[in-house]
Amino acid sequence: MRLWCRLGLTTCLMFASVAAGAQTIYPIDRAAILAGSRFDLKVEFAGVVEVGKARLTVDGRDAAEVFGRAPEFIEREDGQPASALILRDVSLTALGNHTVSASDGEHTRSVAWEVFAGGQRQARNVILFIGDGMSVANVTAARILSRGIEQGKYRGRLTIDEFPAMATIGTSGVDSIATDSANSAAAYNTGHKSSVNALNVYASRAKDTLAHPRVETLASYVRRTQGMATGAVTNTEIQDATPAAVFAHTRRRADYIPITQQMLDSEVDVLMGGGSASLLPQATPGSRRQDERNMIDAFRQHGYQFADTAQAMADAAAKPETTRLLGLFALGNMDGALDRFFLKKGNVARFPNQPDLTEEVRAALAVLSRNPKGFFLMVESGLIDKANHPIDWERSVYDTIMLDNAVKVARDWAAGRDDTLIIVVPDHTHAVSLIGTVDDDKPGPMRERVGVYQEAGFPNYPAPNAQNYPEKVDVSRRLAVFYGSFPDYCETFRPSMDGLRVPAVKKGDIYVANEKLCEQEGAQRREGILPRSADSGVHAVDDAILRAWGPGSERFHGFMNNTQVFRVMAETLGLGR
Amino acid sequence: MRLWCRLGLTTCLMFASVAAGAQTIYPIDRAAILAGSRFDLKVEFAGVVEVGKARLTVDGRDAAEVFGRAPEFIEREDGQPASALILRDVSLTALGNHTVSASDGEHTRSVAWEVFAGGQRQARNVILFIGDGMSVANVTAARILSRGIEQGKYRGRLTIDEFPAMATIGTSGVDSIATDSANSAAAYNTGHKSSVNALNVYASRAKDTLAHPRVETLASYVRRTQGMATGAVTNTEIQDATPAAVFAHTRRRADYIPITQQMLDSEVDVLMGGGSASLLPQATPGSRRQDERNMIDAFRQHGYQFADTAQAMADAAAKPETTRLLGLFALGNMDGALDRFFLKKGNVARFPNQPDLTEEVRAALAVLSRNPKGFFLMVESGLIDKANHPIDWERSVYDTIMLDNAVKVARDWAAGRDDTLIIVVPDHTHAVSLIGTVDDDKPGPMRERVGVYQEAGFPNYPAPNAQNYPEKVDVSRRLAVFYGSFPDYCETFRPSMDGLRVPAVKKGDIYVANEKLCEQEGAQRREGILPRSADSGVHAVDDAILRAWGPGSERFHGFMNNTQVFRVMAETLGLGR
Repeated sequence: MRLWCRLGLTTCLMFASVAAGAQTIYPIDRAAILAGSRFDLKVEFAGVVEVGKARLTVDGRDAAEVFGRAPEFIEREDGQPASALILRDVSLTALGNHTVSASDGEHTRSVAWEVFAGGQRQARNVILFIGDGMSVANVTAARILSRGIEQGKYRGRLTIDEFPAMATIGTSGVDSIATDSANSAAAYNTGHKSSVNALNVYASRAKDTLAHPRVETLASYVRRTQGMATGAVTNTEIQDATPAAVFAHTRRRADYIPITQQMLDSEVDVLMGGGSASLLPQATPGSRRQDERNMIDAFRQHGYQFADTAQAMADAAAKPETTRLLGLFALGNMDGALDRFFLKKGNVARFPNQPDLTEEVRAALAVLSRNPKGFFLMVESGLIDKANHPIDWERSVYDTIMLDNAVKVARDWAAGRDDTLIIVVPDHTHAVSLIGTVDDDKPGPMRERVGVYQEAGFPNYPAPNAQNYPEKVDVSRRLAVFYGSFPDYCETFRPSMDGLRVPAVKKGDIYVANEKLCEQEGAQRREGILPRSADSGVHAVDDAILRAWGPGSERFHGFMNNTQVFRVMAETLGLGR
Repeated sequence: MRLWCRLGLTTCLMFASVAAGAQTIYPIDRAAILAGSRFDLKVEFAGVVEVGKARLTVDGRDAAEVFGRAPEFIEREDGQPASALILRDVSLTALGNHTVSASDGEHTRSVAWEVFAGGQRQARNVILFIGDGMSVANVTAARILSRGIEQGKYRGRLTIDEFPAMATIGTSGVDSIATDSANSAAAYNTGHKSSVNALNVYASRAKDTLAHPRVETLASYVRRTQGMATGAVTNTEIQDATPAAVFAHTRRRADYIPITQQMLDSEVDVLMGGGSASLLPQATPGSRRQDERNMIDAFRQHGYQFADTAQAMADAAAKPETTRLLGLFALGNMDGALDRFFLKKGNVARFPNQPDLTEEVRAALAVLSRNPKGFFLMVESGLIDKANHPIDWERSVYDTIMLDNAVKVARDWAAGRDDTLIIVVPDHTHAVSLIGTVDDDKPGPMRERVGVYQEAGFPNYPAPNAQNYPEKVDVSRRLAVFYGSFPDYCETFRPSMDGLRVPAVKKGDIYVANEKLCEQEGAQRREGILPRSADSGVHAVDDAILRAWGPGSERFHGFMNNTQVFRVMAETLGLGR
């Protein structure tokens, strides 16, 4: 910490007070808090503090006075020899900077918070599209495959290419430069950075994953204070990190059963994706539950229409009286565009009637727009990430095209309304790049068939169909897309035609190359660059690129933290006043 | 070509006329041409055309009438059995779409051109910064190293992070999705896409590399029509592709001696970089010339002040009478920030008085701003690319910081003037990503010391110095940056402390891993994914990210072709009216 002291005396003093053993305060230093939003204030002391000695102030005033009730003092938290103060579900409304100080009677530590609010409400609705793991190469390849390119010029633009606003987004978290989807999506939904695996909580010392200090989500805030409708739409399990960040609070994103209960409690109006495994009673084949509760029934009792096919979803959404809709179209993750439309792999045989993301968005817009107070909708194209991880670039790119198609549905819906902000942003990136083409007509080992520079030429995918997809992916001159991060695996230089690629398999405690891929003609065995505990490629820290359209979009420019995406949404909706 | 016929009948008909053996017209179909800019119009026929049969029209009018002189008919071009028509140095001023048709007496082929012009002049000056090969990971890593990060939030922003406008840029060329720096920089300088290795010419059938159809550069146009000053500043050889694209015309970027002559003929006022090898007479050790001509003297005779050290450059620039300045600070490429400031490797011992890019920019601004009619300046941070190629990410990132420092010099100079458009853009990208950290304190093989997600934490580089560089690069917890494109090489997981990394060396006709790196403790041998003819990583096709500041910057948004960068500069300067 001393390293940074050159930057200024204030900084030095602040660090000087973060000596080993000092108390930790949540929300953390430099937190920006939406006025009126609820959060848990927690102080963790390094050791046991004598009863009556712990003290918490905001701008010098006693916390009990500021918040109307005294913090709970826990002498030995979770039986450990360390005390804590906790005040759950508080909020601040006085705008500006605040200094929060905690003392153990001997040492005081302070953090600075900023409380902010929006001005005039600029938009009735906000639609946040998250392209999970969507990297620059995914977008470039999606443009080539879906629009075509001739003599260096594309034959058309993606819908996101036409968005007027753009910014680069920093995705790092409190604990690490490298984030996961939980941490990053939580930053979009709450304006607070946290840690890997954490959903809308600060990663504290608590042992119970559900007891960590919470911060309120945008969906909760706009429902509670504005009466707005809210929705979370995805093609992953609805309990997966990105959609769960709309409504859940846990230190452990894998808490699918508690997350499902929180989903019900959240009263988010539209919930669509895969993941029925966490709702169906354990007697149902494929259920993840360890009880006989049928959570789908619970949703029905809470006024939700339920759909498990594309047609049922469209029918339910079309009914004027439907204002709450639960759609669950697979036990686990849904299938991506390449498998659903063309290869029929994955779970398509078992769940042949899954909706496309475009159809989900249409249904969600129909239901949510019935609320005259406006809505907040998060839409995730989640399988971009789930294909980038196992080095399956074709699937990630087909699902990037799907995301763009879904964005077009929303943009066309919003066109002319001038009341809807649309944001399209990855939650993080991957180490993926397009470097040329692979040409089967060239001689020699596969690596000699990789064309770069002028040898790359152009790929020979067929023209896209009406939905912007080339109907054949295993063409003779393909894009050459490679990853910088991978476990031991065999590079085949070809698309995986029989389902999502499995680059590595477990052998004892480590992952080794999947020999099925190594047996393919021309496959090249590659030693990974990651610890052998990794089964796939990992997220990149590279900035993500945000695009935005509609009122409020002009607030996005330059480099911004992922937490500022929340702030722009809140300000555009005029929240906190 | 049939593949695209679904897109529309017009397209189909157009393709139908590009049957094998049809004539080729330069400039090509869909070319956008600045009104009044000069270009060579060439028609290449598939075979020998009978004298008097070849015909060229513009919007149905005979070319001789349109351009005031008849095209030259070459019955057998370069002795080949194929005819050509050529009209050099013509221009069009009638705005809008034009159809150019060429007939061999039997078949006619047409291309469509758009002639455009700017409106009101918005800016007096344009400064185009090219971060050669600058990829997203380079910028993210530069921000971490130069600004620091704590709890997921950076301690500051790069200068380019604060630029208000942003766009993604397509860099593909006429011949291939993958470009090189010549082709891409030429697109910025002329508004025409061309082919790998080509500088401001269309890659035609001509055998003489200097005889291909030329298109005029922005520097030439603004000097000729507006009397503006022009400059090209780099830290590569001044004849290297990116700076040469400001003034040279050749099919072969390696034509350094002819390029040097063109540099003199171009009358570009400020020329700074490395590359004296191509100017010094052959008797001088290190000269690349095969004659006794001293081109530095030739420049002096043309009114240029000459400088070969940072001090001489600053002194020359400070003189009020200096309006032309040639600075050559090394025989070959100059050295980057890591070597010049800290490691003292590369050519630093031989050329210890090289200026920093920031100093070059200051000198260039002093000289160019003496012209009351304004100026166009191209500044390249060229060693970002030259370090990305050999998988030397530290050098690429230090030089990204250097670029940002240089941009700050220009931005501070322009602040408050409101008459200068500043653009910062890569010419192409690399397959490079930051995925976490490498921690020497972890046990086991180097790959097990790669920390990802929460295991990455934060690196422990020292705080940056006053020039924004950490003074130590070989720290114990480093950034983990990997490339997706590489030849056979040995990954050391450490910075290259003894000069620019050499990943592969030639062995017969192929490149093999440099065993010096393989001998390093913990080095991991990696088989490349590229043809064995590759000695280093290659360019990526991934979109480049452009940032802009100042009047005209609002014209950049969404996805744009690299040719549109030229158009924005031309329009902002009000050219072509």
